[in-house]
Amino acid sequence: MARIVMKFGGTSVADCDRIRNVALRVKTEVDRGNQVAVVVSAMSGVTNQLVDYCRQIAPLHDAKEYDTVVSTGEQVTIGLLAMALQEIGVPARSWMGWQLPVRSDGAHGKARIETIETEGILSHMSAGQVAVVAGFQGLGPENRVTTLGRGGSDTSAVALAAALGAERCDIYTDVDGVYTTDPRIVAKARKLDKITYEEMLELASLGAKVLQTRSVEMAMKHRVRVQVLSSFVDAPGTLVCDEDEIVEKELVSGIAYSRDEAKVTLVRVADRPGVAAAIFGPLAEANINVDMIVQNVSEDGKSTDLTFTVGKADLDRTVNLLGEKKQSLGYERLVPDSNVVKVSVIGMGMRSHAGVAQKMFSTLAEKAINIQVISTSEIKVSVLIAEEYTELALRALHSAYGLDAQ
Amino acid sequence: MARIVMKFGGTSVADCDRIRNVALRVKTEVDRGNQVAVVVSAMSGVTNQLVDYCRQIAPLHDAKEYDTVVSTGEQVTIGLLAMALQEIGVPARSWMGWQLPVRSDGAHGKARIETIETEGILSHMSAGQVAVVAGFQGLGPENRVTTLGRGGSDTSAVALAAALGAERCDIYTDVDGVYTTDPRIVAKARKLDKITYEEMLELASLGAKVLQTRSVEMAMKHRVRVQVLSSFVDAPGTLVCDEDEIVEKELVSGIAYSRDEAKVTLVRVADRPGVAAAIFGPLAEANINVDMIVQNVSEDGKSTDLTFTVGKADLDRTVNLLGEKKQSLGYERLVPDSNVVKVSVIGMGMRSHAGVAQKMFSTLAEKAINIQVISTSEIKVSVLIAEEYTELALRALHSAYGLDAQ
Repeated sequence: MARIVMKFGGTSVADCDRIRNVALRVKTEVDRGNQVAVVVSAMSGVTNQLVDYCRQIAPLHDAKEYDTVVSTGEQVTIGLLAMALQEIGVPARSWMGWQLPVRSDGAHGKARIETIETEGILSHMSAGQVAVVAGFQGLGPENRVTTLGRGGSDTSAVALAAALGAERCDIYTDVDGVYTTDPRIVAKARKLDKITYEEMLELASLGAKVLQTRSVEMAMKHRVRVQVLSSFVDAPGTLVCDEDEIVEKELVSGIAYSRDEAKVTLVRVADRPGVAAAIFGPLAEANINVDMIVQNVSEDGKSTDLTFTVGKADLDRTVNLLGEKKQSLGYERLVPDSNVVKVSVIGMGMRSHAGVAQKMFSTLAEKAINIQVISTSEIKVSVLIAEEYTELALRALHSAYGLDAQ
Repeated sequence: MARIVMKFGGTSVADCDRIRNVALRVKTEVDRGNQVAVVVSAMSGVTNQLVDYCRQIAPLHDAKEYDTVVSTGEQVTIGLLAMALQEIGVPARSWMGWQLPVRSDGAHGKARIETIETEGILSHMSAGQVAVVAGFQGLGPENRVTTLGRGGSDTSAVALAAALGAERCDIYTDVDGVYTTDPRIVAKARKLDKITYEEMLELASLGAKVLQTRSVEMAMKHRVRVQVLSSFVDAPGTLVCDEDEIVEKELVSGIAYSRDEAKVTLVRVADRPGVAAAIFGPLAEANINVDMIVQNVSEDGKSTDLTFTVGKADLDRTVNLLGEKKQSLGYERLVPDSNVVKVSVIGMGMRSHAGVAQKMFSTLAEKAINIQVISTSEIKVSVLIAEEYTELALRALHSAYGLDAQ
């Protein structure tokens, strides 16, 4: 007997038929002799409707009341799923965040789970009852309902799996696993059987929108084995796990891309101490997240060029902010460019094998793709290129690293 | 400064515009210097949608899960109304049943409120904050959400007013008060300024669907002054209060009618001890509620005719049940009749003034309306007549008791 957490997103519980389908999947795990807790999202569309009501009433609404309203979506689903399970002979009951409770901090609308009390739920699960738990919600320090921010149900599921000491957390979604790259662009993309937490984290934060970044961080911290699989296809998915569990390690696991970034170049910035701080301080204060940063070696010892990337949505604000400070920063020109894409090669093997970055550069050179910015981390190499080369670059790199399906 | 409870039903909070309108009404009470708690129902249509989901998933669903699902309707409204109040500068916060808590018994789907803990809510109200409380819901003994049954928000409001020691409980609805009779039938019907709990209770249970019977019982028990008024018209409504508060007492306060009853006559039932028990025992076991019962004096000392009324919806089951027992009960014929209406004259004055019933009988006789069954209580005389005479009887009685508007 194993303890398993299963999580189903909004499209998997979109209507009563799909909820019945989810109940059958849960029954399969129960019939295998497993103790099961299920975490569910709101029926798709419901949360948007509730958010829309809040906006209609008050554009700048109280986050505590927002949470009161929006958390009802998950509450409806847990009741319905518990009923559907009982209907097919599986003992089940629903649990709201405050009933466990799932204790969070008081950051309403984007709360973080602090602890989950499992005594009550475990006594019910031990008695053979499936626990149907509302995702996305918690109980704040003032005894009020909190929500974890959009997509927070993944985090709820992983946190619950950690608290329950579950053998596995299965995240059912509308894709059947994690791929070596986007299969809509590269036809030869392969589904991965296993991937490490570290790689998944890079993929998640780079725009492969399979799992919430925070849920992967939490899984890594608590060593929760997470499986991503489809709620509509009956096949194994991708297991996100510890490196030790992966026998045949690939040098490179996947190629990710993100079209969400824009490039800003400051031409001829004064090359003196404190300039970087003077530029990036105001951006941080304005809550603008800077990703890649490159500063060239100063040629004349007086000035240098500085290039960095920000989210596309923040580009206008960035340009305005730095435009206002042109005098004090003392640069010559500001050149914004939103026609860029960030392509990243990710793999644990990089730590021990040289030449991974070099293969990326030579592959792109062969296709005459100019690299604008480079940044690297322990298990990742990212380059910024012109957006029009996205497909060409992804396909060439996917082949070059031997990732193509046979 | 007074403490006031205001309650708004589903049609009063049907959409965001109406919720804003409710917020303005609440603000008016706050501006008068009152401490205000508001009890709200779900937006109209929402509860039906949720109940429909439950039926789709499982025709015979777990009442605990039903309550989990259905109680979300009120939760949405309290969040939105709290926001709408804040938006117009009125400090407010929402309270779910479990947050006060409103403690109920464990009869899920039709729970009864046992106690309301007011310490938390009172400290917030004393600090000038409007408390927006979810109606229709409570917290059961197993820490699970209960609902009070349809229309239970009236009961929530009255119970909260009792617990808070409120000066008044204002029930806003889609009618502007309690009338001497149905104004759709009698054009000269008058709105009553005041009515006693006892009279309101008779009116409520007789089909004048202004207030839930249970809420009136609770108001009477705890001596909560209840005002019924319109959420769409700005005018005083009808105050339901103690007899002592009504200076000019009317002999008769109102004429009610109910088309929901059907008559059953058993012809020539054996006139011996135990026959009534043998007839009504099986009906009670089948959960069929019997209202009026009349047994004639036996002419021959051996058999008698027995007439009673049941809800129209229960007529077929009643006929079947008694048909099966024809042999053992030993009656000659069973005559069902659903073309009947029960007309009732209600008034506290009846206790001290003779002749009220006599006036009813003579008025109906003048119009050649035959009385089929009569029953009386301390403050009420009811007669069963053919349904086709409903309008004629109501108008004649309304005039006869001097209730017509000038």
